[in-house]
Amino acid sequence: MEKRYRVGILGYGNLGRGVECAIKQNPDLELLAVFTRRNPEDVKILTETAKVCPVSEVKDWKDKLDVMILCGGSATDLPKQSPEMASMFNIVDSFDTHAKIPEHYKNVDKRAKEGGKTAIISIGWDPGMFSLNRLYANAILPEGKDYTFWGKGVSQGHSDAIRRIAGVKNAKQYTIPVEEALNAVRKGENPELSTREKHTRECFVVLEEGADAAKVEEEIKTMPNYFADYDTTVHFISEEELLRDHSGIPHGGFVLRSGSTGWEKENRHLIEYRLKLDSNPEFTSCVLAAYARAACRMAEEGMTGCKTAFDVAPAYLSPKSGEELRAELL
Amino acid sequence: MEKRYRVGILGYGNLGRGVECAIKQNPDLELLAVFTRRNPEDVKILTETAKVCPVSEVKDWKDKLDVMILCGGSATDLPKQSPEMASMFNIVDSFDTHAKIPEHYKNVDKRAKEGGKTAIISIGWDPGMFSLNRLYANAILPEGKDYTFWGKGVSQGHSDAIRRIAGVKNAKQYTIPVEEALNAVRKGENPELSTREKHTRECFVVLEEGADAAKVEEEIKTMPNYFADYDTTVHFISEEELLRDHSGIPHGGFVLRSGSTGWEKENRHLIEYRLKLDSNPEFTSCVLAAYARAACRMAEEGMTGCKTAFDVAPAYLSPKSGEELRAELL
Repeated sequence: MEKRYRVGILGYGNLGRGVECAIKQNPDLELLAVFTRRNPEDVKILTETAKVCPVSEVKDWKDKLDVMILCGGSATDLPKQSPEMASMFNIVDSFDTHAKIPEHYKNVDKRAKEGGKTAIISIGWDPGMFSLNRLYANAILPEGKDYTFWGKGVSQGHSDAIRRIAGVKNAKQYTIPVEEALNAVRKGENPELSTREKHTRECFVVLEEGADAAKVEEEIKTMPNYFADYDTTVHFISEEELLRDHSGIPHGGFVLRSGSTGWEKENRHLIEYRLKLDSNPEFTSCVLAAYARAACRMAEEGMTGCKTAFDVAPAYLSPKSGEELRAELL
Repeated sequence: MEKRYRVGILGYGNLGRGVECAIKQNPDLELLAVFTRRNPEDVKILTETAKVCPVSEVKDWKDKLDVMILCGGSATDLPKQSPEMASMFNIVDSFDTHAKIPEHYKNVDKRAKEGGKTAIISIGWDPGMFSLNRLYANAILPEGKDYTFWGKGVSQGHSDAIRRIAGVKNAKQYTIPVEEALNAVRKGENPELSTREKHTRECFVVLEEGADAAKVEEEIKTMPNYFADYDTTVHFISEEELLRDHSGIPHGGFVLRSGSTGWEKENRHLIEYRLKLDSNPEFTSCVLAAYARAACRMAEEGMTGCKTAFDVAPAYLSPKSGEELRAELL
């Protein structure tokens, strides 16, 4: 391996740990440092050769890293961190608040351009790989209809919402695509699907002692935005069962586009992209690692400013040369 | 629509006609001329505003077209036409002889660079969309295994091979992926699959009068390369049945990658891309049209020379602006 890109990780939760694991699988990437807001001595990482540093020291690393992978949350961390970091480093983030992406893009673009850095935002699987598949499919089949289904997988937001209900000790919520809806799309029926027709929600709930199960179930099923528009099933289980059977964070989903071609639109086509993931954060991390490589390369070629997956030529993601890619994967 | 790219088509078979239909669905593309080796008066096209010209006049169009879409065959047409045309026009071709892509790339690159043009080769679905999915999936899951299944679809090459057998009047061959193999891959079993285990072949054959069915069936099933390594089924039908039930050219297939992540590779993931196409040439044509747009844009930005799908940032394929894409598809 001729060249290794020097990588930093900002934030060491599920995502940061996932990125650390992903870097291990990519011999051209090398983790030098993890930056944390916690006391560095309390943060135990897996990579023996990397340091754990307080986030206050990040400026000292300005010339020592080729790319910083931001592993904070979209609600409060990234809107602040991404522009800041993009002024000093090439960065990749997984900003996923769809409605605020245009604003985030603008803020990051300004600082990245001022700093002469390459910043790739909203990387992961949705936004990310799902977005790419929507774009490719729309460009290929201009006359058609898009469908995105999520699951089967754990929704952190919905699990949290259940946990906030009085009497609930712990909970896990699965989003499940409705098989009949998926199959109608696959058959090219171009169905109009309501929220209820696309996904169901399945909840596994541990009650506090003495809590009223019927009342909790009613509160879940009628919760606006989260559950009221869905067919929701609630299972009450013990804490042991929850830990034993529901401690994973699987996810995934489907992006489909069904369209017509021909002078009289006489032919139908289906494009389907599917992910089935044991670990949502680890898969997201793998996508982040590949785009970290792309950020380094695009920076080397002077392509500065803010980018999304839409702006990154696929070849930048692979450690292979153009020649190897054409011979082996084309 | 502010700007329309002026498009030429070279070659007017199934693919050329498909590209013509695709252009109709893309308001920012405008077909100006179809170039043919046949007598132009014998070629009836669908677009009333476009001309049919002899290929000998192509040089006169050098400054009148933004992109030429090459619709000839990979065996003899494109190896000659693509470099020639790339010296005069931005081009897109569907060169699909996998083993010869590196050589074709080199020849086209030289002429395109000399002419200051952008040439995108090997566009379609395999090579093309399938290649892209192999690349993305490999970059995301470095530790994993790739699988490509084709079908259910008509193989022109295999149908032709049957038609060359003495006693055969007409024939159509379908390549069919083996469901059990597909499902084993989906389950993450990472199976090692032989040729026979991945695909079966189904043949519909019309015999000449007096031909020996048993002999024809034996010849098909034992034909080296084409059928000997597969479980092959042969159905003898009438010419009427063949025309009625088997005149379409459907195709499609699956690209899958199954991989592991985590410090100890403890989590498994599956990425699956599927195409189900009523018309193989029309879908290929749609991909060509999207990449024709990309060729025009990349040429405007001075990105000359030979490219493949790997080198084209996805945003170039869409008529939407970066801002629209981020707001609507990300």
